[in-house]
Amino acid sequence: MPELDLIHWIMQQHKPSAAVPIPPGDDLAAISWPAGDLVLVGIDQVLEGVHFDRNQHDPQSIGAKAVKRNISDCAAMGCQPVAVVVSAALPTGIGDDYAKALQQGVNIATRYGCEVVGGDVGSWKGPLALTVAIIGRMPAGVSPVQRNGARPGDRIVVTGALGGSILGRHMTFEPRVELGLQLARTGQASAMIDISDGFAIDLNRICTASGVGTVIEADLLPIHDDAVELSRQTGKSALEHALYDGEDHELIACLPESAAIPEGVIEVGRITEGTGMLLRKGGRLQTLQPRGWEHTL
Amino acid sequence: MPELDLIHWIMQQHKPSAAVPIPPGDDLAAISWPAGDLVLVGIDQVLEGVHFDRNQHDPQSIGAKAVKRNISDCAAMGCQPVAVVVSAALPTGIGDDYAKALQQGVNIATRYGCEVVGGDVGSWKGPLALTVAIIGRMPAGVSPVQRNGARPGDRIVVTGALGGSILGRHMTFEPRVELGLQLARTGQASAMIDISDGFAIDLNRICTASGVGTVIEADLLPIHDDAVELSRQTGKSALEHALYDGEDHELIACLPESAAIPEGVIEVGRITEGTGMLLRKGGRLQTLQPRGWEHTL
Repeated sequence: MPELDLIHWIMQQHKPSAAVPIPPGDDLAAISWPAGDLVLVGIDQVLEGVHFDRNQHDPQSIGAKAVKRNISDCAAMGCQPVAVVVSAALPTGIGDDYAKALQQGVNIATRYGCEVVGGDVGSWKGPLALTVAIIGRMPAGVSPVQRNGARPGDRIVVTGALGGSILGRHMTFEPRVELGLQLARTGQASAMIDISDGFAIDLNRICTASGVGTVIEADLLPIHDDAVELSRQTGKSALEHALYDGEDHELIACLPESAAIPEGVIEVGRITEGTGMLLRKGGRLQTLQPRGWEHTL
Repeated sequence: MPELDLIHWIMQQHKPSAAVPIPPGDDLAAISWPAGDLVLVGIDQVLEGVHFDRNQHDPQSIGAKAVKRNISDCAAMGCQPVAVVVSAALPTGIGDDYAKALQQGVNIATRYGCEVVGGDVGSWKGPLALTVAIIGRMPAGVSPVQRNGARPGDRIVVTGALGGSILGRHMTFEPRVELGLQLARTGQASAMIDISDGFAIDLNRICTASGVGTVIEADLLPIHDDAVELSRQTGKSALEHALYDGEDHELIACLPESAAIPEGVIEVGRITEGTGMLLRKGGRLQTLQPRGWEHTL
């Protein structure tokens, strides 16, 4: 299938609307923007052999993962996902059915109130790469939740059980958009991030940006069944998997002591003065290393 | 060099400003948006072995090309480039110097009044891929120039000489932002596109979207010296290279007959009733095929 036919097919999925007066099909799409609202923007890619295995994962779930990683970034800022644009580098000969299935996966964006407004398709001799850029909207008067606002005494909460996502949840996770919006709207969260590289390394990003330390309670950390199952295969403890595995895509939020803890989140520790991360386990404090999933160039 | 150090280095290039209150370093960046202005958005990638040759082209020019392709899309809509986000899939072991040089190339965005506000870096076993998404701003009261507004009788103009870009200009081209802004501001252009896949195929996109035909005058078409030089190697005519080569990144604009022709643009033909594309050459009309550079999946 020629690339142009695929692009034509993608274009046919859209009609002009008040929100998107120029839909995909021109050099750029145009989006109406409410006065005073901030534009939030980011980009994230999924790469064959790194973020997915083409022999194991179907194209719909690969397309969906590429979008959900970005939706999760909106959740972490507490903003509404509005639009995504998608770029696909397709291995030569992959075929039109596969490309359309990727696109159908990408269309999961609409489930979160987010439109697919543009794309670029190319074929090459390389593996499959899918890149998604997202535009989020922050209503006037509400501040995006950054990483640098955590203060000593804040409670640290997570939005779900952690660890072992490689057993499948790294493809099927559910971005915590509603909880993120709720935490930003009520102005409760002082800092927030989504767990992409691992609880410890992502929490450390909050600590570093905010100039604070932390004590995490091992007994409070919600450990996913997948972490337990994976620990049987790896010989590492389930706790280690919960602390250091990547791609949970749960949120870590910091809440002032006075704030109510919203339903659906679990308190796991406190922000402290200073700069180190500590883990309390069996009554003893030990250093919590900011480890996680990290590439080397 | 670990990926995080590179991201840290990228982050250090930015400070919060009134225009970008949340700079790179959080899950998303935030951009202030003037009331009533449209948000324009698109995405474009450059792939090793397709859009550049890593043995032949230096990383600065690869990074710059990825950005300029998107800047050229803004030119084609007549909007101001505001911000780009960049995703890099880097071959394992490519090294920190190479990655930084790519980033320095990407920073060419600032030359067009456009900030680099975010990125994603991953390493993999595949070739080098660089993806850029762009956000453009269209002032309230000015309409983006789409592809579907061409009317019979409109003059067709191009912003520069065409053909043979593969000899080097496909890396070094200058996006026609100022001319694009001028054509949109004055409301002169009825339709516009930038030549990425070739004059004939991109002009056909205007014709198809607008439901019109065209007659192009071969004698008026500005043929680049590169097209002449390339024709000596390929045996094709220089005119063929001007008509069908890709990556000129000049603009094709359609102007009502009453409009003044701005300085720096060249009239090459007319929009007609009907649906076909014709080329007048040596006094004779022949069919102009909508050919160009097209991948097959």
